[in-house]
Amino acid sequence: MKQLKSILALSLSGILAIAPLSCSHSTDATELNSPDGTILSLDAETGIIKTAIPERAQGQEDVVALRHAPMDSVRVGFIGQGMRGPGAVYRFANIDRTSIKALCDKHADRLARGQQYLADAGRPKADEYSGEEGWKELCERPDIDLVYITTDWENHVPMAVYAMEHGKNVAVEVPAAMNLDECWQLVNTAEKTRLHCMMLENCVYDFFELTTLNMARQGLFGDIVHVEGSYIHNLDDFWDAYEGNWRLDFNEKHRGDVYATHGMGPACQIADIHRGNKMDYIVSMDTKAFTGPGIVEKQGRKNDSFQNGDHTMSMIKTAKGQTIHIQHDVLNPRPYTRMYQVTGTDGFANKYPIEGYAFREIKDCDGVPDHENLTYHDFVPESVKASLMERYKHPIQAETEATARKVGGHGGMDYIMDYRLVYCLLNGLPLDQDVYDAAEWSSISELSRISIANSSAPVEVPDFTRGAWKKLDGYHHFMKGE
Amino acid sequence: MKQLKSILALSLSGILAIAPLSCSHSTDATELNSPDGTILSLDAETGIIKTAIPERAQGQEDVVALRHAPMDSVRVGFIGQGMRGPGAVYRFANIDRTSIKALCDKHADRLARGQQYLADAGRPKADEYSGEEGWKELCERPDIDLVYITTDWENHVPMAVYAMEHGKNVAVEVPAAMNLDECWQLVNTAEKTRLHCMMLENCVYDFFELTTLNMARQGLFGDIVHVEGSYIHNLDDFWDAYEGNWRLDFNEKHRGDVYATHGMGPACQIADIHRGNKMDYIVSMDTKAFTGPGIVEKQGRKNDSFQNGDHTMSMIKTAKGQTIHIQHDVLNPRPYTRMYQVTGTDGFANKYPIEGYAFREIKDCDGVPDHENLTYHDFVPESVKASLMERYKHPIQAETEATARKVGGHGGMDYIMDYRLVYCLLNGLPLDQDVYDAAEWSSISELSRISIANSSAPVEVPDFTRGAWKKLDGYHHFMKGE
Repeated sequence: MKQLKSILALSLSGILAIAPLSCSHSTDATELNSPDGTILSLDAETGIIKTAIPERAQGQEDVVALRHAPMDSVRVGFIGQGMRGPGAVYRFANIDRTSIKALCDKHADRLARGQQYLADAGRPKADEYSGEEGWKELCERPDIDLVYITTDWENHVPMAVYAMEHGKNVAVEVPAAMNLDECWQLVNTAEKTRLHCMMLENCVYDFFELTTLNMARQGLFGDIVHVEGSYIHNLDDFWDAYEGNWRLDFNEKHRGDVYATHGMGPACQIADIHRGNKMDYIVSMDTKAFTGPGIVEKQGRKNDSFQNGDHTMSMIKTAKGQTIHIQHDVLNPRPYTRMYQVTGTDGFANKYPIEGYAFREIKDCDGVPDHENLTYHDFVPESVKASLMERYKHPIQAETEATARKVGGHGGMDYIMDYRLVYCLLNGLPLDQDVYDAAEWSSISELSRISIANSSAPVEVPDFTRGAWKKLDGYHHFMKGE
Repeated sequence: MKQLKSILALSLSGILAIAPLSCSHSTDATELNSPDGTILSLDAETGIIKTAIPERAQGQEDVVALRHAPMDSVRVGFIGQGMRGPGAVYRFANIDRTSIKALCDKHADRLARGQQYLADAGRPKADEYSGEEGWKELCERPDIDLVYITTDWENHVPMAVYAMEHGKNVAVEVPAAMNLDECWQLVNTAEKTRLHCMMLENCVYDFFELTTLNMARQGLFGDIVHVEGSYIHNLDDFWDAYEGNWRLDFNEKHRGDVYATHGMGPACQIADIHRGNKMDYIVSMDTKAFTGPGIVEKQGRKNDSFQNGDHTMSMIKTAKGQTIHIQHDVLNPRPYTRMYQVTGTDGFANKYPIEGYAFREIKDCDGVPDHENLTYHDFVPESVKASLMERYKHPIQAETEATARKVGGHGGMDYIMDYRLVYCLLNGLPLDQDVYDAAEWSSISELSRISIANSSAPVEVPDFTRGAWKKLDGYHHFMKGE
């Protein structure tokens, strides 16, 4: 599927295009492959492939640090009560000042579990929606502040956009969007409606990541040099659990890192992405599809053109000269890892397969034992790590950990995520994750696909803030009174 | 330093070049940056940058699986008695059927340590060479079979080439060559003289890597999907130990992964590189030089254009559709790691920070406990790992480990390396590492530099065998009688 997309791009984006066809040496021009049909052009100066950035609609502004008026309670409707939905209802039922107004699933019988959770928590029964169009009715209700979407991937954007168009804030499962067009739909709709659109990336709330983020903000790692993350999780036991086979189906049809947000989220927060920093370009590479075809065969089918490579890697360069490295493997027999790793000029953090910190020297750290083996060639001893993690515990974690461990959901991080979403809405604060995070972290899917389709060529990461990435100075969790 | 190199390349390599200057739209042509001045061209079809591959001299043939007549003893001369040299003399003094004829260093007083090791082992005193030209005299001696070079990086190739030109087999420290021109010098000279040129990559002989390689050859990991390696080692305590500051100096002047062979060696052996497989192309990315300038400053100097980024990453695609991932960081406070990791369709191996194996299922493995928790979501238990490592111990390791642990050198791997070099020469066998390995593993330095200088563009890994990469079927340690 080779197309000379650049000629179209010239007039649309105004950026340098590759040698046009009228040139007598036109056969020398590199042809760009666009697997999703996105308009591509080549920056002749740098050799970087650019995707078209749609112009912001007239009169529209960015929604960086968007605030609404404080709320008395958060009235919420849930769409999708399959794998992730009931747990979300359970958690919301255990957060004060929430009101669960409505539950929706295509299948009416899936609503019972959420209703049971509500009953268990002494909450009133929620209204029920089902069938093909039930979710639209839910979005159209006037008495809901937040639509919480936990459906299959390809329904995320249509539902999120519809909800915003009907005046609702949105929380949507990962990845929020499956391609660049969908990323821009989320951004444009959020800017038009000036509503919150948060992706439900839970891994940024895991204890080690929160503590490490806090250490980074306090300067323990010096300048951030390099961050890694991944989704390496064998899904053999899960493939058959997705209705209509939607998850394997997406992998069958798409190359690229189609599930990058669990790695991207913690990495981008550490790197202050669109808070004074931005991702400049990405290069990606995948392996052959060694294992995928066999999974299809186990389902009694054949697919000789299974697209998703077993192992996909990306490297991203930031405006501040750092690198981010992301990997994806859901097929091979490997222990679960999100690879979370932070390298700084003064320190280092590593989460998998063992949690550890290393430092050039320990500064400003009363109460931490001055162990004589505290050299930067090794992780600090367990006792020092424990002291550090206590001392640098994130305020959000300190505030929520008792309840988080009780309510649970991936060891507590799901609860903290929902708690923070509600907290920020109640207090009229900017959310921890905004629509640009959703777009940036989700965009890796198509951006990596474009790079791979062009022999791992560099691809510009579009600035989804369209110029507003320097408005904030560093990543920040807003707290009451700010 | 932007240059339109492609026009020159057209006639030399015969591959498609970018739009020449005569085209009226020539400003649209991508200009290629060549930091080392190597002639580059762009493959218009794939967008991959190609380096010029010199034609093989007429009448010259490849040296894949090169064999000489068996030797009664290996007569060796050592050049460079600084950091790595004396240890090599010590190890050779503890290997049977070797004869240490000569020691050389620019500084005569550095020869005493090696002579002492010889005396301690009851060996005769070696002849001594020193001064600027001493190494040439050593190479010119008629009674030496092997010149063993452990000097600074930039003397490796001039000395190796001179030694081969004077009829000597060569063993040379890592990296064997510092740029592509030097890689080709080694290959061309080895092919012309039909002599062995082995790079002294020791990490391929570490116990975990040898065992894992053996497991891979026995099929425990299924198809190899992805391999990783790195050199992450804080060198703060070492920088001042290199005479004339040569090591920091090279980092000051060069971007790219300048020390990739410790990661590349084990990865390429697992991936059967130029034994039925080859590396197709590489993309690399580095961070800003955050830390380097401060190291220079500690030496009482200033360098506002320190080149080497703190963290450098490369991704390499192989002809069989696998990926190799390599990292480099010698500046920041991180625990030592070579990251060695193997992902296969049936199993997984991980060396740092903890050694572990995971498998889809354990097949054909008598004597290994059938532990009920043996799932592929976790590493196998320690007891299973121990049984596996005993069962799949590499024959070379079994043969050498008692002596290796006694003689030592990086925990024994240096001894095994030298033992195997001598063993193969004595028995007239192909060496474990040939000149193509030396060129391939060393080439990452300039290839990564080219990619980085061109915004992480893909760069073809030249086929140093010039077509002979399919002659052998899989990596193999040759044993007596083969």
